[in-house]
Amino acid sequence: MKKTYKKINAAIIIIGNEILSGRTQDINVSFLAKWLNDLGVRVSEVRIIEDKEESIINNIKEVKNNFKYVFTTGGIGPTHDDITSKSIAKAFNLSCGYHKEAYDILEKYYKPGEFNEGRKKMAKIPDQAELIYNPSSGAPGFIVKNVFCLPGVPSILKSMVEGLKNKIMGGKKILSKTINVNTVESEIAKSLENVQNKFKDIEIGSYPFFRLGKIGVSIVMRSTEKNQIDDCFKQIVSFIQKKKIKIMDRK
Amino acid sequence: MKKTYKKINAAIIIIGNEILSGRTQDINVSFLAKWLNDLGVRVSEVRIIEDKEESIINNIKEVKNNFKYVFTTGGIGPTHDDITSKSIAKAFNLSCGYHKEAYDILEKYYKPGEFNEGRKKMAKIPDQAELIYNPSSGAPGFIVKNVFCLPGVPSILKSMVEGLKNKIMGGKKILSKTINVNTVESEIAKSLENVQNKFKDIEIGSYPFFRLGKIGVSIVMRSTEKNQIDDCFKQIVSFIQKKKIKIMDRK
Repeated sequence: MKKTYKKINAAIIIIGNEILSGRTQDINVSFLAKWLNDLGVRVSEVRIIEDKEESIINNIKEVKNNFKYVFTTGGIGPTHDDITSKSIAKAFNLSCGYHKEAYDILEKYYKPGEFNEGRKKMAKIPDQAELIYNPSSGAPGFIVKNVFCLPGVPSILKSMVEGLKNKIMGGKKILSKTINVNTVESEIAKSLENVQNKFKDIEIGSYPFFRLGKIGVSIVMRSTEKNQIDDCFKQIVSFIQKKKIKIMDRK
Repeated sequence: MKKTYKKINAAIIIIGNEILSGRTQDINVSFLAKWLNDLGVRVSEVRIIEDKEESIINNIKEVKNNFKYVFTTGGIGPTHDDITSKSIAKAFNLSCGYHKEAYDILEKYYKPGEFNEGRKKMAKIPDQAELIYNPSSGAPGFIVKNVFCLPGVPSILKSMVEGLKNKIMGGKKILSKTINVNTVESEIAKSLENVQNKFKDIEIGSYPFFRLGKIGVSIVMRSTEKNQIDDCFKQIVSFIQKKKIKIMDRK
């Protein structure tokens, strides 16, 4: 499909072999997407890439020009596989030495004698980067131009984004409505397409599901325009009722 | 990091606004990655993209040349937002009419009179495509050159890949070992880097975790080479024991 409404967009780059291997289930995409939707920013693309300098540099160079905001997750810890900072620096042709503010934060965070070599590595951040404060575990993330670099551990990431709201210039909040109906997609495909053709600013998705032994379809409307989404919702409810299909729930 | 072992690689393209909006948590990446690892294929990149023809065409054109295998999920159902078939056809300059074998399968699958317009749409598959049979719900997936198109519903996807094993020419199975240790990353960063430098064919990852109130680090080794992974494992255990760090478990 589908005519998309005017949008402020973002890409998410998940840096992590542990996601690509299937070992770890990513949950940051879903969290960040919802958080950004509330700020009126639409996630238009996600890439999960290897912990390789070349991959990070090439992907960042490409997406930073194509999206208003870019969020990276992962690779900002103290070990040899944490190479996000130096790779982002290279993507922007910046140097990547000790960042004074980050160094001071970490030095204060650890007890005397515990600010060791591994931990000092976390103060190496691209020159001119603005820090993203970390209320959970000290080590900051950072912002270079439109690229926001966050950690991979979901609980730490969540604690850090709260401080970012005033850095994001979003648009209207992206609203959604859902109707779950007790039918199969092919029964509603034609009517749903007709409604979609009338509402170009609404993105209508159709998702089959199996729940507690029952089959059904989730019809999801998304848009920044409340009145249109309400009208669209009514027209869908109307054809569903005409077809005598059971509405399981709506929200 | 990290010297990667010689590999047969794959990309996964998740086609779905419902994942990008955060509404649905993807679980197909993790399943496909593990399934491919067992066949000796490494997933090197994942992209989650919009249900937009232009996005699908551009991404497929790019990844089909850069990876040995490409797997897509989503967008092969009967509704207006299911545009994977026609988009893949365009990416390969193929036509996309009724595919005789797919049409026959679907016609037999449904009761007389139930093979309606929406369902017939699912028989529109790129010309020359080979089918991927669907033991769960009739509608087949398809293969065009090195691109394998699967549905988005995880249970259906799982039921369909079983028939694909003999279509994938993988390499050696990718093995992994994990040691979970009761420490923080910075305590082991230097020693771990030394081990990584000795084992160029092993990919060593380090992932902090919080579990039942305890902090720890998962050290994960991955490689196709069993002997090397065993040696690497021993050297890591050795430095962990020297540091008197508790090993929580290993597998």
